[in-house]
Amino acid sequence: MDSYGFLLDLALILLSTKLLGLITKRFRMPQVVGALLAGVILGPACLGVLKETSLIADMAEIGVIVLMFCAGLETDVKELKKCGKASLVIAVLGVIIPWIGGAAVTYAFISNGTIESNAEASVLLQSIFVGVILTATSVSITVETLREIGKLKTESGNAILGAAIIDDVLGIIALTIVTSMADTSVSIAIVLLKILGFFVFAIVCGFIFFKLYQMWIVQSKKAMHRHAIAAFVFCLLVSYCAEVFFGVADITGAFIAGLFISCTSIKQFVTAKFDVLSYLLLSPIFFASIGLKVELPTMTGAVIAFSVILVVVAVISKIIGCGLGAKLCRYTNKQSFRIGIGMISRGEVALIVANKGEAAGLLGDNFMGPVVLVVVATTIITPILLKPVFKGEAVIESNEEAAETEVNAPVAGDIGTAESK
Amino acid sequence: MDSYGFLLDLALILLSTKLLGLITKRFRMPQVVGALLAGVILGPACLGVLKETSLIADMAEIGVIVLMFCAGLETDVKELKKCGKASLVIAVLGVIIPWIGGAAVTYAFISNGTIESNAEASVLLQSIFVGVILTATSVSITVETLREIGKLKTESGNAILGAAIIDDVLGIIALTIVTSMADTSVSIAIVLLKILGFFVFAIVCGFIFFKLYQMWIVQSKKAMHRHAIAAFVFCLLVSYCAEVFFGVADITGAFIAGLFISCTSIKQFVTAKFDVLSYLLLSPIFFASIGLKVELPTMTGAVIAFSVILVVVAVISKIIGCGLGAKLCRYTNKQSFRIGIGMISRGEVALIVANKGEAAGLLGDNFMGPVVLVVVATTIITPILLKPVFKGEAVIESNEEAAETEVNAPVAGDIGTAESK
Repeated sequence: MDSYGFLLDLALILLSTKLLGLITKRFRMPQVVGALLAGVILGPACLGVLKETSLIADMAEIGVIVLMFCAGLETDVKELKKCGKASLVIAVLGVIIPWIGGAAVTYAFISNGTIESNAEASVLLQSIFVGVILTATSVSITVETLREIGKLKTESGNAILGAAIIDDVLGIIALTIVTSMADTSVSIAIVLLKILGFFVFAIVCGFIFFKLYQMWIVQSKKAMHRHAIAAFVFCLLVSYCAEVFFGVADITGAFIAGLFISCTSIKQFVTAKFDVLSYLLLSPIFFASIGLKVELPTMTGAVIAFSVILVVVAVISKIIGCGLGAKLCRYTNKQSFRIGIGMISRGEVALIVANKGEAAGLLGDNFMGPVVLVVVATTIITPILLKPVFKGEAVIESNEEAAETEVNAPVAGDIGTAESK
Repeated sequence: MDSYGFLLDLALILLSTKLLGLITKRFRMPQVVGALLAGVILGPACLGVLKETSLIADMAEIGVIVLMFCAGLETDVKELKKCGKASLVIAVLGVIIPWIGGAAVTYAFISNGTIESNAEASVLLQSIFVGVILTATSVSITVETLREIGKLKTESGNAILGAAIIDDVLGIIALTIVTSMADTSVSIAIVLLKILGFFVFAIVCGFIFFKLYQMWIVQSKKAMHRHAIAAFVFCLLVSYCAEVFFGVADITGAFIAGLFISCTSIKQFVTAKFDVLSYLLLSPIFFASIGLKVELPTMTGAVIAFSVILVVVAVISKIIGCGLGAKLCRYTNKQSFRIGIGMISRGEVALIVANKGEAAGLLGDNFMGPVVLVVVATTIITPILLKPVFKGEAVIESNEEAAETEVNAPVAGDIGTAESK
């Protein structure tokens, strides 16, 4: 009988994420906030009626891949290239400042004696590691929020997307540097080579796929099921290779796959199909699963104080770091602030890094609670802040629309309802 | 690293089912045949590169639920009611004749001494049990094939749908009768009461949901994401309740849920969305998973002979039983034959029944091989035979289309591409 429990889980997730999404929408907040809260409320943190099964975890992973694939599909590659240098500066400063901030506050608390650290590793190394946890931006929440409020195709939106992708890579490098300081079996040179290798691989494969795919579409004369399936297979394979062969996050692979498909003439057709897949099944599971991960450990007064300060440092250091980067690249004050806000969310990436640190002995038991709190707080704050902050940002009008209708892709219906959530 | 293997599995499933589907299409067979073969070829029966993980099994279950939900959505309820009596006759004869046929041939082989039976249970009871395995029709393959060739909305198509639903219920009754003969803890009366209870429950809940849903749609003025999600939640809940509280197959619940949604004014909108969900992700997984289940046990000469005869009996007894039932209800000869063919497929239902029998000591080790062969053969034969046999059957034109456009459901795009697989 219990073998059918996943049907009930799925029904609960779909119902609660939509219901809470509509409630948060009524309060002028993005629906993503509601979906996240649905997971927190149903999960072990509150009611405990849902827990993260392996089915939910795996489908959530497919969900975030599809989400980032859609983000890639909707990105204007030319615009992204334009802000490439700016993204790099934003990402670098957005890694360095939170890193220093996190390390400093942790070092102060440990050397102070307020919090007990792990006796086996040096205090400095442990402090640096907490800093690393604060570097990783989780872009998925921001992307979905910007899509929902129709601000993904803006100058700031593009800068955030670009910076988050680079940030992901920088995060891996930072993690590698610190773990290699604790464990001599990890070599920084090899990690850097693998990351470089991934981008070469992705661009070469993407380009070959793009050429063949475009030829195939032109030959088929109209958009068909098989084209959407082929695009999905390409996305899954790049994601898989990124994670398994190159140690890069799968969602980075999915995003790049989306970028290549976005250059084909059936971009709108494919986007419409994946949009359905995303909102009707996969996205709700992904957002709920993040909420389900929240399990607050029991904490002492000192740890709670540290947690609150860490959350503040996490938020402010990203706003300052990324905002400063944006400002240096001649974005306006308002845009720099928007970009900073968009990069606050840490999400699941920070949890993964923390787990790795715990395994390597770099993160004591006392620090898991604060890290979870940082993830929860930044994840929920980001979409709440994004909506008011992005008011007035101009959407970039694409001039490719005319060319896209060459191939008869009947998507009007889907596109038409995409905003009616 | 292996925790990302499911991405590769998914890519393999999507690629192989579509590729083989297109190949079988070129040979004028339905694409479903290719999708099934993809699972057999990649699975343990041939190459062994894929095996059925719990993720694949669960997503396949969601897939067959969505498949039957879509079948319900596309069914014309008035037409289904019209052929209700006929469906009952077809189902009853379609259970009795294969039951007798299967039991007779098994009894002959055992009493002959050709095949060794389980010493603990009586030969008669074991023979009767093999008969029960042959009663269960697996309608999903037939439904998908008929949808694919555009013949689901035909007189014969409706008769098959109705008969298969009743057949499912009769199968449960037959299974209960036999297992209660071996095990006194199972009471037939309670099982019958539960089945009756399910239909009362489903109709009452469905009616209430339908009324509220229709009111909500009219109020919303246009079809929205939330409507599709609500429909999905309803489908999942009915499926779950069917299986867990009433012991009826979840797909029966999903089909009934689809019937209720098909009476609302956004039927086409919902169908278009679930169509995408189905072809882009869930259906390929379902069909591949059936193929993955095929694992041929080692068999002796006598067992192989028995298998072949059992397959022949399985095919012919369904054609005769259901065809005779249809003929009695004044279908034409051609239509009766079509209905008989449509009911041949046994699919996963037979495997589930066989597993229950093995656990109850009613099915010896020698019989698992033949049962698997019956399932594989009937599942692959059905879609191959259906296409030529259904040539010339007239599609029922619905006169509800005009009323359906009341609510502005923009689905033209999706519907337009539904046939271009």
